[in-house]
Amino acid sequence: MSGPAPAVAAARRAVRADLADLVAGDLVLVACSGGPDSLALAAATAFVAPRAGLRAGAVVVDHGLQAGSAAVADDAGAACRRLGLDPVRVVRVTVGAAGGPEGAARHARYAALEDAAADLGAVAVLLGHTLDDQAETVLLGLARGSGARSLAGMPARRGVLRRPLLALRRTDTLAVCAALALEPWHDPTNAGRDLIAVVGPDEPGEPAPAPRRSAVRRHVLPMLEGVLGPGVAVALARTADQLREDADALDALAADLLDQARSVTGPTPTSRAVVLDVGPLAAAPAALRRRALRAAALEAGCPAGALHRAHVVALDALVTSWHGQGPVALPGRIEAARACGSLTFITPHD
Amino acid sequence: MSGPAPAVAAARRAVRADLADLVAGDLVLVACSGGPDSLALAAATAFVAPRAGLRAGAVVVDHGLQAGSAAVADDAGAACRRLGLDPVRVVRVTVGAAGGPEGAARHARYAALEDAAADLGAVAVLLGHTLDDQAETVLLGLARGSGARSLAGMPARRGVLRRPLLALRRTDTLAVCAALALEPWHDPTNAGRDLIAVVGPDEPGEPAPAPRRSAVRRHVLPMLEGVLGPGVAVALARTADQLREDADALDALAADLLDQARSVTGPTPTSRAVVLDVGPLAAAPAALRRRALRAAALEAGCPAGALHRAHVVALDALVTSWHGQGPVALPGRIEAARACGSLTFITPHD
Repeated sequence: MSGPAPAVAAARRAVRADLADLVAGDLVLVACSGGPDSLALAAATAFVAPRAGLRAGAVVVDHGLQAGSAAVADDAGAACRRLGLDPVRVVRVTVGAAGGPEGAARHARYAALEDAAADLGAVAVLLGHTLDDQAETVLLGLARGSGARSLAGMPARRGVLRRPLLALRRTDTLAVCAALALEPWHDPTNAGRDLIAVVGPDEPGEPAPAPRRSAVRRHVLPMLEGVLGPGVAVALARTADQLREDADALDALAADLLDQARSVTGPTPTSRAVVLDVGPLAAAPAALRRRALRAAALEAGCPAGALHRAHVVALDALVTSWHGQGPVALPGRIEAARACGSLTFITPHD
Repeated sequence: MSGPAPAVAAARRAVRADLADLVAGDLVLVACSGGPDSLALAAATAFVAPRAGLRAGAVVVDHGLQAGSAAVADDAGAACRRLGLDPVRVVRVTVGAAGGPEGAARHARYAALEDAAADLGAVAVLLGHTLDDQAETVLLGLARGSGARSLAGMPARRGVLRRPLLALRRTDTLAVCAALALEPWHDPTNAGRDLIAVVGPDEPGEPAPAPRRSAVRRHVLPMLEGVLGPGVAVALARTADQLREDADALDALAADLLDQARSVTGPTPTSRAVVLDVGPLAAAPAALRRRALRAAALEAGCPAGALHRAHVVALDALVTSWHGQGPVALPGRIEAARACGSLTFITPHD
């Protein structure tokens, strides 16, 4: 008697490894859209969890954004039940307007997943993102040009969320569905998946409009693989891993630098100002200094989406190329000015 | 009377800003291939330098790799002389075999440029790389998947080398040539430029074969701009700038960490071993720890090109997931083993 198909075995191994830290009786939930990735994940989890002494359920989020979305969600829920997952909860969310359509849908989805986990007492929510999603996320981040964090893709874990399939290809999840005779739902507009495969709620960035991600999937990645070699998607995912490590380290070191630079002497001009000593900033490498300056500007009230590299470079010049220049105007009507070895971010008083 | 064409003015401004730190009488050399980018650079420099009290010459490197390359080089030299550059030196180099054809050509070229600078007493050698070259370099680096450094593109300055046109587009340099009735040489194989637009000699990486870069130029970048928007090249160049800062900071901090981790107590097992204390490594963020471990492996004698992320991750597990596992085999027949809180890299004795 032969074992399971290779893709099925690979998906099970990935889930088993990802759940190895949980203890008997713990409940995990699969976030299932009914698409091939999350359906393959649901099948692998339904197989692996009971053998590891774990309980496994599912959450299906109906965004209510397309005609027939309730039926698609119900079908996905039914598929999860047939796989033996229990409990299975189908949640209809209301998508707001803040952060644009994709940002709002993502926010509503992650909130619903975390609510369901809390409500059902689950210790983990598993997401079906694959290496292809990760590669696409890196390519979309390139278009933003906003540094390591925007290229760092999706972490394998954040809070209760886990992504066990990040090392598998989309062809693997399709093969899992085929081998197990599962019938995944293929979103005719591709918008369903497009709404799912975005960076988590803590890093809103500027999510790509769905057609962009769809175009990256259908045209850009295949072409890059044609020109640069078949290893491009894997290289992009590896890049994301390394840049995420880099961004984590640099963000932490920049936070230390900012603390060090906070002016402890001298009167604070206004209670709403952020005041920094230039000395420690000037002595730090550019990557830390500029991150610390960006963090200070955000703390002073600059809206993150409007604060660009050009602003940070102008702030940096107050520290490193000081020749008596005037204040730097920042988004949100913040002004940063240097005087007597201090950099002060002044927030308007309205 | 109207001023110069906008592209001509932009090129002159870029060169003027880049030479602002030089002093009257200094000699700068333009590295000119005769192609549109370096010819536009030669024209801008010939205009700007005398007005800034500087002397400007040119170096043309003939790689001798294509039939007729000597004539192309002579033509480029003549064009530089017609622009008023003086001295103009045409250098024929011998391209070796080490590092592959592109690596060897690059090595020979940069050596020739630096030799010419030393010989003629020049303080700077100007290279014609544009924003498009930078964007292509980032895309080619993505295919390697080897982290921030491979995406960091070309620095604006390194040693005597400067790249004043990194903020200009290739369309700008073509417009400069058209406006000034210069006739740039267009390499029929694109190999000439492909050989030029690679990362400098200190970061050999794995330079892309010329056809790859050519395909990135002709297909990938235009398609990305079509799908992701016309700002992609600019975003890629901005990404390169930020990742270069990041890589510089992380490399410096990792070197500090490595120094800190060097075992000062206990006997060194062999005079050719690198011995590190696990303690400081374990306390550091992954991005620094893994860079320090990579640097230690290189110091122990691992060949850089063969040392992959998987090796570094295995080394890292000796530090952070220690459960008594055996030594890690590294390229170059190096072994790394943990014992008594130390990590020892043992080099073979033959």
